[in-house]
Amino acid sequence: MADTDLTARLAALESRQRALEDELAIMRLIASYGPAVDTRNAQATAALWAEDGSYDFGGPRLDGAKAVGALVDLDTHRDFVARGCAHVLSLPLVTLDGDRATAICYSQVLVADGDGWRAARVSANRIHLARGAGGWRIITRETRLLDGSEAARALLSLEKEAP
Amino acid sequence: MADTDLTARLAALESRQRALEDELAIMRLIASYGPAVDTRNAQATAALWAEDGSYDFGGPRLDGAKAVGALVDLDTHRDFVARGCAHVLSLPLVTLDGDRATAICYSQVLVADGDGWRAARVSANRIHLARGAGGWRIITRETRLLDGSEAARALLSLEKEAP
Amino acid sequence: MADTDLTARLAALESRQRALEDELAIMRLIASYGPAVDTRNAQATAALWAEDGSYDFGGPRLDGAKAVGALVDLDTHRDFVARGCAHVLSLPLVTLDGDRATAICYSQVLVADGDGWRAARVSANRIHLARGAGGWRIITRETRLLDGSEAARALLSLEKEAP
Repeated sequence: MADTDLTARLAALESRQRALEDELAIMRLIASYGPAVDTRNAQATAALWAEDGSYDFGGPRLDGAKAVGALVDLDTHRDFVARGCAHVLSLPLVTLDGDRATAICYSQVLVADGDGWRAARVSANRIHLARGAGGWRIITRETRLLDGSEAARALLSLEKEAP
Repeated sequence: MADTDLTARLAALESRQRALEDELAIMRLIASYGPAVDTRNAQATAALWAEDGSYDFGGPRLDGAKAVGALVDLDTHRDFVARGCAHVLSLPLVTLDGDRATAICYSQVLVADGDGWRAARVSANRIHLARGAGGWRIITRETRLLDGSEAARALLSLEKEAP
Repeated sequence: MADTDLTARLAALESRQRALEDELAIMRLIASYGPAVDTRNAQATAALWAEDGSYDFGGPRLDGAKAVGALVDLDTHRDFVARGCAHVLSLPLVTLDGDRATAICYSQVLVADGDGWRAARVSANRIHLARGAGGWRIITRETRLLDGSEAARALLSLEKEAP
């Protein structure tokens, strides 16, 4: 086989491997969100977002990683954590586009209540990410309660996956 | 190192990489199901199935991708979506066998109810897939409510993973 | 391109590919737990653990794969399975360190109850794994109910991911 053929196949493999690594890195980032907020770790929560990233959950939008990290100090959040809670994000649908990506997933907030746990919130999520010097970070996360509103369904739309 | 050694290592890598890509592609397909049905997108739902694929959820079996897509128009489904619902599929156990694969997972249907969400359905799923010209598609999906019946447990059996 | 360059690139790819395979293998192991216990398959449950692995869920610690497998015969477990239940583990946060790994995830035990399913248990999990001759196995799994206790939050800590 010609050396150039080997080189081309190697380059193709490297490129496809980066895509796999990117997808798993984004899954890992999404799997980190729950542990970060359920331990009220503001720094770890902020570190999931780009410096100028935002989190729009339906209330006043949180602008900047630091503001997002500060959500662990909200009264509602403190109360949930004190009772016992789990922020569980589902397996995301990740769509890569070079150094950008979109992830669509569900999130549940399960809170201890009596002799069980209740789903206090179930939401749709659309997360845009970018790869920076420190790896993948969230640029925007939009979250809406799945309460029958069109706004939540719009986030789940498969028509506009491309970032 | 001899050129033939490099070629053999490269071929081994390519084959292993395809397996990783297949597994992630199947995960993506499974992560798409909820967004497709929760937005009542018949076309996107149908596109997850092979043309002649089927979905057996315990009621009358849906035969063909078009029939599966039409489930988004069922009265129960419309009602769930209007109230607010999430069809959440869990991280699947994927077993590849060349151009065939099996995925075992749980599915939950969470529906808005009062000041929270309730799990209206929790089911076992066994999904057989095949790789066609357009990528991985569902050939058969069997789903049964985890209501204590043997039928549901049979779908979760780890004894017969091979497709 | 020099042959040595190709060889080095190939070796780098092989090493990165092994990391991807390891992460997916660990995900598969975690996705197997629910199906193993919800079908009361003691052998499949035990096979997820190393021979001398342990499972510490807050009660008396189960030492050894065989003892872990025997949990499917506990009265509470038999009762849950008879009613209909799903042990759903969330997408894990996997951190690899050579032949060792840590996975952090949530687990839910959903049990049929009236006309729906209730989350009878929602827990934090920290799982240490090792790669042996037969692949990845659990060395220790620690699980604590998310009932507001510090013990559960400690398992979710992102400060000490390294195995």
